[in-house]
Amino acid sequence: MHYSRLTQRIAGEGAAAWDIHYRALALQAEGEDVIILSVGDPDFATPTPIVDSAVDSLRAGATHYADVQGKARLRELIAHHHRQTGGAPATHADNVAVLAGAQCGLYAVAQCVLDPGDEVIVPEPMYVTYEAALQAAGATLVRVPLRSANAFQPDPADFAAAVTPRTRAMLLNSPHNPTGQVFTQSHWEALATLCREHDLWLLSDAVYAELIHDGEPFSPDSLPGMRERTVIVNSLSKSHAMTGWRLGWVIGPEPLIQHLTHLALCMLYGCPDFIQDAACEALANPPAALAEMRHAYRTRRDTVLEALADSPNVEALCPAAGMFMMIDIRRTGLSAQAFANRLLDEQGVSALAGDAFGPSAAGFVRLSLTVDTERLREACRRLARCADECRATVEA
Amino acid sequence: MHYSRLTQRIAGEGAAAWDIHYRALALQAEGEDVIILSVGDPDFATPTPIVDSAVDSLRAGATHYADVQGKARLRELIAHHHRQTGGAPATHADNVAVLAGAQCGLYAVAQCVLDPGDEVIVPEPMYVTYEAALQAAGATLVRVPLRSANAFQPDPADFAAAVTPRTRAMLLNSPHNPTGQVFTQSHWEALATLCREHDLWLLSDAVYAELIHDGEPFSPDSLPGMRERTVIVNSLSKSHAMTGWRLGWVIGPEPLIQHLTHLALCMLYGCPDFIQDAACEALANPPAALAEMRHAYRTRRDTVLEALADSPNVEALCPAAGMFMMIDIRRTGLSAQAFANRLLDEQGVSALAGDAFGPSAAGFVRLSLTVDTERLREACRRLARCADECRATVEA
Ligand SMILES: Cc1ncc(COP(=O)(O)O)c(C=O)c1O
Ligand SMILES: Cc1ncc(COP(=O)(O)O)c(C=O)c1O
Repeated sequence: MHYSRLTQRIAGEGAAAWDIHYRALALQAEGEDVIILSVGDPDFATPTPIVDSAVDSLRAGATHYADVQGKARLRELIAHHHRQTGGAPATHADNVAVLAGAQCGLYAVAQCVLDPGDEVIVPEPMYVTYEAALQAAGATLVRVPLRSANAFQPDPADFAAAVTPRTRAMLLNSPHNPTGQVFTQSHWEALATLCREHDLWLLSDAVYAELIHDGEPFSPDSLPGMRERTVIVNSLSKSHAMTGWRLGWVIGPEPLIQHLTHLALCMLYGCPDFIQDAACEALANPPAALAEMRHAYRTRRDTVLEALADSPNVEALCPAAGMFMMIDIRRTGLSAQAFANRLLDEQGVSALAGDAFGPSAAGFVRLSLTVDTERLREACRRLARCADECRATVEA
Repeated sequence: MHYSRLTQRIAGEGAAAWDIHYRALALQAEGEDVIILSVGDPDFATPTPIVDSAVDSLRAGATHYADVQGKARLRELIAHHHRQTGGAPATHADNVAVLAGAQCGLYAVAQCVLDPGDEVIVPEPMYVTYEAALQAAGATLVRVPLRSANAFQPDPADFAAAVTPRTRAMLLNSPHNPTGQVFTQSHWEALATLCREHDLWLLSDAVYAELIHDGEPFSPDSLPGMRERTVIVNSLSKSHAMTGWRLGWVIGPEPLIQHLTHLALCMLYGCPDFIQDAACEALANPPAALAEMRHAYRTRRDTVLEALADSPNVEALCPAAGMFMMIDIRRTGLSAQAFANRLLDEQGVSALAGDAFGPSAAGFVRLSLTVDTERLREACRRLARCADECRATVEA
């Protein structure tokens, strides 16, 4: 039978990156002592008040079709939250569409602003599903490097050089997965200027914005002339340990929100009412657990930095935010994938090879900070040991 | 700012059909005695054991990312359910992808099998969001009439005449919204033959398959040579009063399921785990409420038939299934839209004009069987009165 050309554009081997994760899960299921640091899913439970609110809503019968754009109250709370965290002060409920996660938000935005053949500038390393989400719309990714020599910070000159007459948008992600780096305000300003000069959309993936350890949240739609061309994609997945609830949103100009609502009508027909109620609770009454989780990620980051500080063969890059960190393993002489395989096979620790996120992250592995500090310390011991052994082999 | 061409393809005025529904809700909110029969959302609560199962799952922490294709257990239950209800006996879990409702399933299938310019044959009247879901993929709808003179049953000759070299699929919906008619096996056989002869996909929207009053469920993938080209889209929305849970599925050949899983990865990143657990409960232990709801729809249908039997100016078409029925108002001399407006304004009953679903349903209004029999009897009295008054005006 015939399948559409789209099926080829979404079949990227991004998926192969996860093989090591599934292998680790299988080993763990067999009873092996495996420390799994290969997934971006918080080890925390969703805070109880949020769960309670979903339960109350379910019991109260909020099980019917809901407003396709998102419940008015939720959209108001999202707009308010955005204004409170550095977003454009004029943001209101009509600038918000609720969708099934940030992933769904990004997919839907790509459908509504990109035509086949349009180019989107995306710094790499990048989150693995960007490729399929953009290519589903028929767009072409134009990758610019975030250089490890530059601590994975963007160089606006790289972006300027990548603009062509076909460029329609840039997709930025700060705080960044996988590196944990945060754009400075001057980075934002330089990239925003580029967007204005070339009439580009600025798509901002802000899913880690609540997990900043060093620095302040910044939202590019607050810059002059940027509100009309900025699209923010966000969700409760990471900040609230709600990955499995599939609740996210898009903030942007009203015409975009109307287009997204049309798309949501034929693609989703709305998000579950009781999940939207839980999201209202999450935003209206931020649970104490949020700060605790943020604190835990920070403590874990510091644990890894400390545990690897004296290791001669690996170097940890300090992330300013988020729940991941990058470990430079180049001194081992192995590729990141070879190292990750050995780390799992010989030491029972699963991490993702940096290359999975883009060539500029070759020579790094990404650790998720999703186990407690004790396990993390043990993982670091194993990782350093693995690196030492690799290095010894190379030198032998 | 620039928006994609897709935004024009999904902006159809299907939406305008719902104006009368929103107007009715507004009148009700103002305290008017309005009987709302304009929406396809069951008035029943989701059966308690299903809600309980979601609550248990939430409390047990099933709030993390889930399998993107759908939980294995749920896919097995769906395959089993399909086999039990007339589906191909070889259907197994690898033939199933779980998506966020039948709407999402249909959208995703269209993306994976249709290329821009492909034609899809769709009988009209048809469910209003089909247009946007198919056009989102760039496909062209080729409408064939379901004639009221023929009780809205399909005439395979119309379908045969609509096939062109660009035809890629037909999209069929039995039991049918808005007419409640059910294809006979010989209709299915004739249309299946056409699909085989012209190498077409047969897309079957089966969301009302559990609500058949007269006749047996039939699934076209059980016909010889059809399993490889049939795609079934279904959900718990209507059968289980779970419209707001956004849980549906697609059953089809394995390569299609793999493509759908790729799409689900970049579009949804899975459906909530606790909702999938509730769906498992719904399918593993069908609650007694299912039969009660089915029985209620049937009783309501019979109530309308009886209540309108002696009305000289309207005629109810008996639906074999589902939660809607079509009322022929042609003797009033008004268009269905004009009649629906007058029915709401003068009698406080909201119904949708048949034209909203396609030109072949002009002269009919669709009633939803979503209020109890007493209210339904009152709605029928008002409807008959409205028709009599319209008729009197025409004759005067
Ligand atoms: C950078 C980035 N964007 C988006 C997502 C998806 O988030 P959500 O769960 O809201 O779809 C992730 C998840 O890992 C991510 O890392
Ligand atoms: C014919 C038809 N198909 C699909 C749907 C959408 O169902 P779901 O809620 O599973 O998306 C509806 C809802 O009214 C319908 O009438």
